[in-house]
Amino acid sequence: MSLSSRHLLGLQGVPKEDIQLILDTATTFREVLERPIKRVPTLQGKTVVNLFYESSTRTRISFELAEKRLSADAINFAVSTSSVNKGESLKDTIRNIEAMKVDMVVIRHAAAGTPLMLTKLCDANIINAGDGIHEHPTQALLDMYSIREKLGRLDGLKVCIVGDIAHSRVALSNIFGLKTMGAKVSVCGPSTMIPKYIEELGVDVIYNIDEAIQENDVLNVLRIQLERKAREYFPSIREYVKYFGITSERLERNKKDILILHPGPINRGVELSSDVADGPYQIILQQVTNGVAVRMAVLYLLGTLN
Amino acid sequence: MSLSSRHLLGLQGVPKEDIQLILDTATTFREVLERPIKRVPTLQGKTVVNLFYESSTRTRISFELAEKRLSADAINFAVSTSSVNKGESLKDTIRNIEAMKVDMVVIRHAAAGTPLMLTKLCDANIINAGDGIHEHPTQALLDMYSIREKLGRLDGLKVCIVGDIAHSRVALSNIFGLKTMGAKVSVCGPSTMIPKYIEELGVDVIYNIDEAIQENDVLNVLRIQLERKAREYFPSIREYVKYFGITSERLERNKKDILILHPGPINRGVELSSDVADGPYQIILQQVTNGVAVRMAVLYLLGTLN
Amino acid sequence: MSLSSRHLLGLQGVPKEDIQLILDTATTFREVLERPIKRVPTLQGKTVVNLFYESSTRTRISFELAEKRLSADAINFAVSTSSVNKGESLKDTIRNIEAMKVDMVVIRHAAAGTPLMLTKLCDANIINAGDGIHEHPTQALLDMYSIREKLGRLDGLKVCIVGDIAHSRVALSNIFGLKTMGAKVSVCGPSTMIPKYIEELGVDVIYNIDEAIQENDVLNVLRIQLERKAREYFPSIREYVKYFGITSERLERNKKDILILHPGPINRGVELSSDVADGPYQIILQQVTNGVAVRMAVLYLLGTLN
Repeated sequence: MSLSSRHLLGLQGVPKEDIQLILDTATTFREVLERPIKRVPTLQGKTVVNLFYESSTRTRISFELAEKRLSADAINFAVSTSSVNKGESLKDTIRNIEAMKVDMVVIRHAAAGTPLMLTKLCDANIINAGDGIHEHPTQALLDMYSIREKLGRLDGLKVCIVGDIAHSRVALSNIFGLKTMGAKVSVCGPSTMIPKYIEELGVDVIYNIDEAIQENDVLNVLRIQLERKAREYFPSIREYVKYFGITSERLERNKKDILILHPGPINRGVELSSDVADGPYQIILQQVTNGVAVRMAVLYLLGTLN
Repeated sequence: MSLSSRHLLGLQGVPKEDIQLILDTATTFREVLERPIKRVPTLQGKTVVNLFYESSTRTRISFELAEKRLSADAINFAVSTSSVNKGESLKDTIRNIEAMKVDMVVIRHAAAGTPLMLTKLCDANIINAGDGIHEHPTQALLDMYSIREKLGRLDGLKVCIVGDIAHSRVALSNIFGLKTMGAKVSVCGPSTMIPKYIEELGVDVIYNIDEAIQENDVLNVLRIQLERKAREYFPSIREYVKYFGITSERLERNKKDILILHPGPINRGVELSSDVADGPYQIILQQVTNGVAVRMAVLYLLGTLN
Repeated sequence: MSLSSRHLLGLQGVPKEDIQLILDTATTFREVLERPIKRVPTLQGKTVVNLFYESSTRTRISFELAEKRLSADAINFAVSTSSVNKGESLKDTIRNIEAMKVDMVVIRHAAAGTPLMLTKLCDANIINAGDGIHEHPTQALLDMYSIREKLGRLDGLKVCIVGDIAHSRVALSNIFGLKTMGAKVSVCGPSTMIPKYIEELGVDVIYNIDEAIQENDVLNVLRIQLERKAREYFPSIREYVKYFGITSERLERNKKDILILHPGPINRGVELSSDVADGPYQIILQQVTNGVAVRMAVLYLLGTLN
């Protein structure tokens, strides 16, 4: 069995069988991560370039770990060490990397659509590690893996994505993936953070966080990207926290049993209070662990079965 | 058979047999690059430090790929992460790297002569990855490899190097290497970009690009290094393009059959028009692929046969 | 036989048997460094993250070399490529790295106590690569290894640490380690650079460098950290050099036979004159070589025996 595409650009249009295959394969690699020796020889002799045009800690390290545990050769290429300042276009950079006979490229870029463009320029398998406000498919896959691991299924679950939906690639990838897997997806946030097209995606909008907590099995709470002038979109951080911040008190007032995800890094005291971020409902660090297994699965499936 | 030197500092004075051996060895590695598994165990257990005092995309990645495909351990050391700001001299840095029992050092530095200095301080094999305006031998080797691959020989070929000859380490290494291999070498550019010593090297000067196209089998077109204030050397970029820029129209007006090389990154619309840069005469991306094979050959020959 | 701790946070309180075991194990790895193939398979499949919040050349490369020579997978994480600017706390970074199932973390941080904090947050083995002005245990271990290698023992030796004792993690780790191993330790420097608590550590203070040379077998000369405004602590660099700088003339005037160590990078002409830095008494580059072996020993002992 193999994936229907040579690339992972996003989850929009990815068939259920593919997502199922990735999640099932990740289960195997998740077990490898519990072994004393976490390295398998699967991608020996393959080269993966991690091409990060936006800085990132956890995603880059998570991919690099996944690559090394599959015995691939990982080469890092970050903007700061690049020849961007020599005026080379992304197009020429990619053509060059392709000419060096690289097998796979993991790309993060601020411009939506960059990974797709790469597939036109390059024979390597392309994995999108986040492109602008478009998609971040491995994040959504690890979110789904983590939900399924905890609750046993995705089909029929009610999942609400909370926060700045309009500027989130994590939200979009989650919406596409979760709906394909049969979950009922809603979003919750201030109206300024909900994009106009959201209902066309078959997603309900909830403007009240208490209602969102009451009516859902899972909350996937996004990071408020303070550095991206998200500030403009609502009166103030203080008001966001008041109306949408998730605190223990709010959880207990509304419901006992809910699963909370967060892609990290957390703004403690903003989208999650610190006690919720460390509390019994969340599975934030399991998500991180699962992220390595899910990325190993994606690299393995694209690198060997295609 | 082995090289006559433990280091590759430049191509000046390197005997024909050595260049021949590197190019022939590269042919073997070029085939490895077409295999699904591109890794060979040749340099297992050897450590190579990539010491880059100037930023570089393609050269650094090309070397790192070459090292990893030979199973060497590659350690990157870029200026930004260095203790240069702690006031340590290059001399002390090198002595330290040497004391760490490193096998090979690949060095790029803005000061001509730095790689030579390293050979005095250090037992490791030294490979010059570009020193100021002095030499860039692996670039010239990959250029020669690419010409030979395409045209079957170097001996007797007419090769013209076009652009800012006076500030180019690529030009100088090409001149030394090509002449040793029996090619007839000329240079073409505005008189302000032609160094006074050039005729002492047995190189013809052509001031007219149309004539250069008509009379040569190969043009190796250099990058105009806009960031290096090359601007001072000719009236304006616009005039450079007008008199020396290579366009399809100019190629077709003068001659049909010519081979165009460029070390990259290209300033599209300056030294090459975009259609020439992507057109049928150029082998720019083959040069990039060959670069990995040539660097594997150099690393292999220095790392094992000496 | 194994170490009594899963971590190496400092040398304070580390039992003599542990230090002995590390130094003896390092002797084995020191021999490996003389082989043509310097790689051993000891830590295959283990992952080590090098988490450097302060820039460093030699310590980072020394650890990375040690890791690669033990066949561990090394992942570098430097501040500049981090999401520190996304406002993530060190605590969250560590929890994430831990969740990624990393086996060992080598940490350098400007805040004393950071490595200790990590052990609370993280199951991985933690190795302190320098925390503020607290400790730098692998430096002290390599200093002790180098002294023992040269003079055959530590017990009963008279060792004086010279320079800015008050701001030196190297000094503190040396004091703890050397005293445990039975050396008689003193310090020498201007009174503004000698911390008040020093005598409580059982260390003698010498204010006259000539006396320090006459009365000791070993001088471990610290770097004057010009960039840390050490200037404030004494009238001027010129006066420091005059009263405490070690020159050939001063060595010969006082004594013939002494061993001089320096952790590097050297300020030539400040704490050591250039002829002393390159002269017959010093073993500065042997220290660097031994540093790789000592770090291999620490990584090996923590990574396999615990």
